[in-house]
Amino acid sequence: MKLYTKTGDKGLTRIIGGQKVRKNAIRVEAYGGVDELNSYLGVVISDLPDYPALRMELVEIQQILFDCGTDLATPDDSRRYRTDNAYTKWLEAKIDQYADVPPALKEFILPGGVPSAAKLQYCRTIARRVERQVVALQEVEPINEAVLTFLNRLSDYLYAIARYVNHEEGEPETVYRRNKTIFH
Amino acid sequence: MKLYTKTGDKGLTRIIGGQKVRKNAIRVEAYGGVDELNSYLGVVISDLPDYPALRMELVEIQQILFDCGTDLATPDDSRRYRTDNAYTKWLEAKIDQYADVPPALKEFILPGGVPSAAKLQYCRTIARRVERQVVALQEVEPINEAVLTFLNRLSDYLYAIARYVNHEEGEPETVYRRNKTIFH
Amino acid sequence: MKLYTKTGDKGLTRIIGGQKVRKNAIRVEAYGGVDELNSYLGVVISDLPDYPALRMELVEIQQILFDCGTDLATPDDSRRYRTDNAYTKWLEAKIDQYADVPPALKEFILPGGVPSAAKLQYCRTIARRVERQVVALQEVEPINEAVLTFLNRLSDYLYAIARYVNHEEGEPETVYRRNKTIFH
Ligand code: B12
Ligand code: B12
Ligand code: B12
Ligand SMILES: C[C@H]1O[C@@H](n2cnc3c(N)ncnc32)[C@H](O)[C@@H]1O
Ligand SMILES: C[C@H]1O[C@@H](n2cnc3c(N)ncnc32)[C@H](O)[C@@H]1O
Ligand SMILES: C[C@H]1O[C@@H](n2cnc3c(N)ncnc32)[C@H](O)[C@@H]1O
Ligand SMILES: [Mg+2]
Ligand SMILES: [Mg+2]
Ligand SMILES: [Mg+2]
Repeated sequence: MKLYTKTGDKGLTRIIGGQKVRKNAIRVEAYGGVDELNSYLGVVISDLPDYPALRMELVEIQQILFDCGTDLATPDDSRRYRTDNAYTKWLEAKIDQYADVPPALKEFILPGGVPSAAKLQYCRTIARRVERQVVALQEVEPINEAVLTFLNRLSDYLYAIARYVNHEEGEPETVYRRNKTIFH
Repeated sequence: MKLYTKTGDKGLTRIIGGQKVRKNAIRVEAYGGVDELNSYLGVVISDLPDYPALRMELVEIQQILFDCGTDLATPDDSRRYRTDNAYTKWLEAKIDQYADVPPALKEFILPGGVPSAAKLQYCRTIARRVERQVVALQEVEPINEAVLTFLNRLSDYLYAIARYVNHEEGEPETVYRRNKTIFH
Repeated sequence: MKLYTKTGDKGLTRIIGGQKVRKNAIRVEAYGGVDELNSYLGVVISDLPDYPALRMELVEIQQILFDCGTDLATPDDSRRYRTDNAYTKWLEAKIDQYADVPPALKEFILPGGVPSAAKLQYCRTIARRVERQVVALQEVEPINEAVLTFLNRLSDYLYAIARYVNHEEGEPETVYRRNKTIFH
């Protein structure tokens, strides 16, 4: 079978279970967004040679995002969902671990720093964009809420490891100049 | 004339033919999306020094995307469209050529690999996001359907050459662990 | 207090002033978009070692974008807005300065060139995407119009410095082949 099937040339496609939908259907937006996030994680990973533990975690997250994508491409819970809240628990432990390394911050920081940290911050904002797409789907269709919880925690994880990488590289963060105390 | 005309400062702009529309009009989203895709292709190209043939093809695709953008910025077919199905035929030949090099896969792979391949996978997801924007435009306005067909094939081309680059670089793909056979 | 508060796990969040909204609310899209733009600027900056003046300007723009984000996260003008038209005036002077360096162009160019210029062009299209999100918010809620004006000028600034960087690096621009004279 050829890679391209031409079946989607006029704007329609099929989801899991075989139902035909428009490609701009909110469900397709949601799992298309997860695919985008997953792919930008691939860009981050390709640029992170010196952090083998982070690399492994990010690849594990890519696997989990495929589970998320499958759940979002499934129009009802007639089959068992794949994404489990255990994934979120795992992320929380990682966040606690990395967030403890750099000194605590009470202010917003300008996203950036060393190239890998900058990409992690950008990835964080893609995760949040996709989270919004999934929230839009949730508004009109039943979804696996574990996907939403995981995406919410993922952006906090990405923030934590962006700061961790800058800290390890000796790169200082720049704070937003009009900050009052934001983090408590 | 200055680069900035200030005419768009309040959220309105003009499309080809002179009609005034809001910048969040679905038509502007569509050709703005094509501009974004085109620009990310520029990022990919700037990072692909060792593949002169791919480079030339990607620049050709940039030219074609300007044709697509022009067509999408034109509110009716009163002038002849620029995007032709011949462009899609050209892409199909390229897909067949590159897809034949790495061993055939029947499973989803994690997007990533060497930096250029990772960027190509990310570009693939932008192409698909733009395709969805054009499908949204198609829902409410007549469009040049050749644009849609080209965008659909473009994401398959980007997938094919991402795999090709990893294969040439000796970089193995990682498969999704819960795959059943997906590609036939 | 932990980084993750779990309060947003079900798709709701709070904006400035304490009002609870869905995460896919158009207002959240708008300041989430500004965060994305700000973060991609961080990626650009991390890749621009040889242009200290540009670096400083881009960091200043990141600070301003936080002001923009605060304004967009504020549901009414009950508190004084932070973004001022003086920021736009400052950008205009910079545009004039950089646009004067490379020879004037009357045609569209393919976005790309050296890696930094290519990233600046991509950043330009993100600025324009965010501008569209803010225009969508403007359609339904009162906003600080100075934010919109700043974003509009920002994409012209990014275009000007992308061309400037290519010019300094001796990298020629490729023009769109079907150009008639576009810039006057
Ligand atoms: C969802 C999906 C995606 C998702 C991936 C899934 C995810 N987890 O995020 C995304 C958007 C990422 C994706 C991307 C791509 N995809 Co895709 N994708 C699909 C789709 C719709 C379902 C695949 C799937 O996950 N099945 C679920 C699981 C993994 O499979 P399974 O457990 O064996 O389940 C099977 C059955 O049990 C049954 N089933 C499962 N649940 C249920 C529920 C009900 C109610 C019922 C009745 C049956 C049923 O259906 C499944 C058969 O697929 C199929 C088309 C289709 N309808 O099957 C195309 C399909 C596999 N994709 C295809 C292609 C080409 C791609 C891309 C290359 C496109 C591109 N250019 O970007 C990329 C490759 C990405 C990569 N990294 O490898 C093609 C493959 C063509 C071929 N040669 O065979 C397909 C067949 C679509 C098509 N006709 O063109 N894809
Ligand atoms: C569409 C468009 C874009 C598209 C590009 C087109 C595409 N193919 O994707 C995108 C979104 C990418 C774009 C980007 C930019 N653009 Co622009 N763009 C336009 C627009 C609306 C049309 C240009 C066009 O493609 N014309 C069609 C073809 C190529 O031209 P033509 O064949 O000569 O056709 C002319 C006539 O025949 C007639 N015409 C054609 N078709 C039809 C149909 C009907 C029914 C009628 C009655 C007449 C008619 O109108 C055309 C005159 O432009 C013009 C404004 C305008 N309304 O003209 C601004 C315009 C050219 N852009 C402008 C600017 C500033 C930019 C950017 C720098 C903005 C930025 N900061 O990102 C970038 C530069 C990008 C680059 N890579 O160089 C400015 C230039 C200002 C100046 N100094 O002259 C303009 C004039 C808008 C403005 N007033 O501010 N742009
Ligand atoms: C807006 C916002 C953002 C914006 C940033 C602002 C911008 N300018 O773009 C964006 C989207 C970028 C953002 C990102 C993040 N944020 Co935030 N953000 C907020 C939010 C909603 C408001 C903060 C703010 O700007 N206050 C305005 C100014 C700067 O503060 P201020 O002048 O002192 O004003 C205070 C008072 O005067 C009063 N006030 C001000 N105006 C008005 C108006 C009225 C009418 C009234 C009655 C009161 C009032 O409220 C303010 C208290 O915050 C708060 C939650 C909240 N409702 O407070 C979370 C919050 C600070 N963010 C949080 C987090 C976790 C993050 C992220 C790490 C999330 C992520 N994973 O990406 C990132 C970090 C980004 C970074 N670079 O550092 C958490 C911090 C948790 C903690 N440990 O304390 C908070 C508390 C939300 C939460 N409950 O989870 N955020
Ligand atoms: C830090 C602040 O960011 C906002 N917030 C929470 N989730 C998202 C998201 N997915 N996208 C954009 N903004 C979000 C809330 O207002 C929160 O308080
Ligand atoms: C591979 C699968 O991806 C989905 N699909 C097809 N086109 C798009 C697009 N533009 N964006 C997101 N998902 C898409 C369909 O469900 C297809 O079967
Ligand atoms: C250069 C051309 O781009 C269009 N234009 C103006 N602002 C935006 C934006 N934010 N996003 C996409 N397109 C835009 C208008 O049609 C303008 O004339
Ligand atoms: Mg959150
Ligand atoms: Mg397709
Ligand atoms: Mg503009």
